[in-house]
Amino acid sequence: MRVLGIDPGLTRCGVAVIEGRAGSTLTALHIGVLRTDPDWAVERRLQGVHVGLTALVEEFEPEAIAIERVFSQHNVRSAMATAQAAAMGLLISAQHDLPVALHTPTEVKAAVTGSGRADKAQVTSMVTRILGLEGPPRPADAADAVAIAICQIWRGEGQRRIEAALAAHAAGAVSGTSTRGRRA
Amino acid sequence: MRVLGIDPGLTRCGVAVIEGRAGSTLTALHIGVLRTDPDWAVERRLQGVHVGLTALVEEFEPEAIAIERVFSQHNVRSAMATAQAAAMGLLISAQHDLPVALHTPTEVKAAVTGSGRADKAQVTSMVTRILGLEGPPRPADAADAVAIAICQIWRGEGQRRIEAALAAHAAGAVSGTSTRGRRA
Repeated sequence: MRVLGIDPGLTRCGVAVIEGRAGSTLTALHIGVLRTDPDWAVERRLQGVHVGLTALVEEFEPEAIAIERVFSQHNVRSAMATAQAAAMGLLISAQHDLPVALHTPTEVKAAVTGSGRADKAQVTSMVTRILGLEGPPRPADAADAVAIAICQIWRGEGQRRIEAALAAHAAGAVSGTSTRGRRA
Repeated sequence: MRVLGIDPGLTRCGVAVIEGRAGSTLTALHIGVLRTDPDWAVERRLQGVHVGLTALVEEFEPEAIAIERVFSQHNVRSAMATAQAAAMGLLISAQHDLPVALHTPTEVKAAVTGSGRADKAQVTSMVTRILGLEGPPRPADAADAVAIAICQIWRGEGQRRIEAALAAHAAGAVSGTSTRGRRA
């Protein structure tokens, strides 16, 4: 599975294309940061993010997109800008017919480190191991985007296992080994 | 001057294409509401707004876009959705090289009625007179989009007058009638 992870932002938009399956070493095909000039008008900055993300989708052809879910707990103005940058990722997923998932920072940390309260160093350390790298991924600004993509691959894998189990169960039901109605 | 006014939203996005100059009756070329199904995924809804706005720009070829500025004073979740719908208008302005302006609800009310505290009925009444209509514009949901476009035409006109005055002043300065250094 190949996932484009996006840590949305106008000034710095972290991006990572990660490939692999849960349970094996994952491969980073691309790790980077899209930047737009703070002196540009907001519409030009949003277009810059849209163009940059479109180029990544066309070059790496991911099968899914994962975006960090935005909260407005801090500065309202920056939260709005982040929400609008995230909207570029959402629009692109629809324009390219790709499934998209939103994950909260807590979900991402929990998926990658086992703890939703992990700090940045712990996340970076786990991401480095998961990708089998000798040092932390560069640029450092893109670490969250890497973690978001990993989270999606692992969650997607879990979702596939659940679906496979349900399919097997349904097949069993059809062939007469249904457990419906039984109690443990 | 022809302006596309946008009252951003995912469920209902008011749109109006208004043409004319300050001081004369304005003409409504299009008044409408773009709707997206609340059951759709947010990325499909954003794409719906993007496609709908693009079609309007291509059909009516406005010279400028004006969008109501979003605030997050109410529900954070709906404010984020509105900010993301507004981002579609911003992106389209950049994609079509059109100038775009954001106006607050207070600025729009003040421009159209003379009072930033005007209620909806007052705004609708003034908009009806400005457009020379026999009754209020339909659909009623689009009244704010109409007012935003009118606000932009009038503000744009004022801006042009200021620029013309500055240009005349600069020309005068070149020809030796500069007032620089004088005191009133």
